[in-house]
Amino acid sequence: MRIGLDAMGGDLGTATVVAGALDAREHLAADDMIVLFGQEDVILKALGGEVPAQIEIVHTTDVIAMDEKPVVALKSKPNSSIAVMTKAQKMGEVDACISAGNTGACVAAAHMLLGRLKGVERPGIAVMAATPGGTVAVCDCGANVAARPQHLYQYGVMTSLYLEAVGGVESPRVGLMSVGEEDSKGNDLVRQTAELLRADDKLNFIGNIEGRDFPKGVCDVIVCDGFVGNIILKLVEGVGSALMKQVAMALISEMPEQTETIIGVGEKFRIQYDFNQYGAQPLLGVNGIWMIAHGATAQHGFVSAIKAARECISHHVNDHIVDHLCGE
Amino acid sequence: MRIGLDAMGGDLGTATVVAGALDAREHLAADDMIVLFGQEDVILKALGGEVPAQIEIVHTTDVIAMDEKPVVALKSKPNSSIAVMTKAQKMGEVDACISAGNTGACVAAAHMLLGRLKGVERPGIAVMAATPGGTVAVCDCGANVAARPQHLYQYGVMTSLYLEAVGGVESPRVGLMSVGEEDSKGNDLVRQTAELLRADDKLNFIGNIEGRDFPKGVCDVIVCDGFVGNIILKLVEGVGSALMKQVAMALISEMPEQTETIIGVGEKFRIQYDFNQYGAQPLLGVNGIWMIAHGATAQHGFVSAIKAARECISHHVNDHIVDHLCGE
Repeated sequence: MRIGLDAMGGDLGTATVVAGALDAREHLAADDMIVLFGQEDVILKALGGEVPAQIEIVHTTDVIAMDEKPVVALKSKPNSSIAVMTKAQKMGEVDACISAGNTGACVAAAHMLLGRLKGVERPGIAVMAATPGGTVAVCDCGANVAARPQHLYQYGVMTSLYLEAVGGVESPRVGLMSVGEEDSKGNDLVRQTAELLRADDKLNFIGNIEGRDFPKGVCDVIVCDGFVGNIILKLVEGVGSALMKQVAMALISEMPEQTETIIGVGEKFRIQYDFNQYGAQPLLGVNGIWMIAHGATAQHGFVSAIKAARECISHHVNDHIVDHLCGE
Repeated sequence: MRIGLDAMGGDLGTATVVAGALDAREHLAADDMIVLFGQEDVILKALGGEVPAQIEIVHTTDVIAMDEKPVVALKSKPNSSIAVMTKAQKMGEVDACISAGNTGACVAAAHMLLGRLKGVERPGIAVMAATPGGTVAVCDCGANVAARPQHLYQYGVMTSLYLEAVGGVESPRVGLMSVGEEDSKGNDLVRQTAELLRADDKLNFIGNIEGRDFPKGVCDVIVCDGFVGNIILKLVEGVGSALMKQVAMALISEMPEQTETIIGVGEKFRIQYDFNQYGAQPLLGVNGIWMIAHGATAQHGFVSAIKAARECISHHVNDHIVDHLCGE
């Protein structure tokens, strides 16, 4: 396997990406290769001047910043790491792409250069999230902010197949995010999507869920449009971390002699809820493997990302998706 | 003032509503009256057989359950507490309505029987939420799940005026919930709403916010459609409470000798984040005062609700809304 990794993406810079790539080598098969896309001098410097075993560099000149308009940036910067890496997958030179860079640019590059899988109308990002009730996959989380019922239905199918193949979850429970559990609740998009999900007897659709079900482990997959999914994830991340800080400070001020224990418990929760454990998130529905990582991905997050990309390649998720959607 | 209260609404039953009404009397002016709408025998029993000072009963026969379809229920049950109480406001027999019952039925009754304020296109529910960064008002939280830009713009205006008049917040900061802070991010609804909010120079519009800004106190008002607002609120409630339980259990298992202190700190947070402190939430934009309470409102929540309704009446929020929207 040859895994493409955008060395220019991520809030923490090239040194972090490269350090993650180096650490990830111990999880590779002997003939696997990590291909770093980016400015060669910057990457080489991060590598300490030498290219070690199982690492390759593909030099690219342009860099797409986090706040650039995706489609404009891709067109005006054809030699960006994101564009060149995606073309390399198109040409069969890498088997997967990973980036913690501009999400919109990653989605646009994958969409424009790789195209969609047969039967898929719109790709969606499936994000794994840790909750008190266990891990849940939310799809879509921002690829598509103007979803139609058919798109959401396909997110349910694709994420379910992904969890089954890659996560080993048997018959994943699929919930549709709405404003109440009753079928009559929600907006037109939700009501029409529910009908499509219910009509597919290969899916384990449990019906509508609501916001307060998120942490309860009632389902393995949450289906929603990219606008709602993005808000949900950022909200949970923001509220969880603000609350934990507030609680820790209150506890320490109440029993300062227990500071070390309190910090230790906080650290356990930080690890339990660390998004880096999932590495990168599949952009499901594109004709290839494109994994999008959180902008703030840390060194160990890039290790998880490379492991996740390997899983995606070896489990042939895309074949399962086409089989399901095209009725074979 | 005469405050109407639905004695049949709320998950905890008539006894809780009535107990709240009794407690609320100490916050009333001498000529204020709380008018309880519901089945007289049930209310009388909860009152201990006698109708005390400053309490009145209006007997209604029908009860709308929490899971009934709002419009169907209202039409088939014209003698429900919700319908009769709303008609009483229309006739000037009460100055405000409060219910912890079926939200959809409350919205529909207010909309159909009181109508909209001049200039308002769609009423919205503004919910006060406690966050680590302070109280924020989210509008809409479920009255309107198919919002247009003009509706969202008006939610910004109405909630801002409400906070100014009732909450004493000077020039409230209005944020628009989106998937990124940049103007280009979001869906069509958000982009068009942002233009309307920005064009109103009487508003203190701070621009787009994203999910992770929710707990940070960056704004006083969050504008979103009712689908998103409902998910946000339930999500925050669910995640907050699940996380607090998990943290408390982990701490207690780590230092069982500190159980009492840990429970004490937890209790402080429970009070800080208790939705009952806000009582009930205004349905802004209807031609009257209709306050909707959380289904799980407790006895002290009904006290807050009655106080909130009094504030609404005395601060003439509706006049300010009409003045602003009709350009006077």
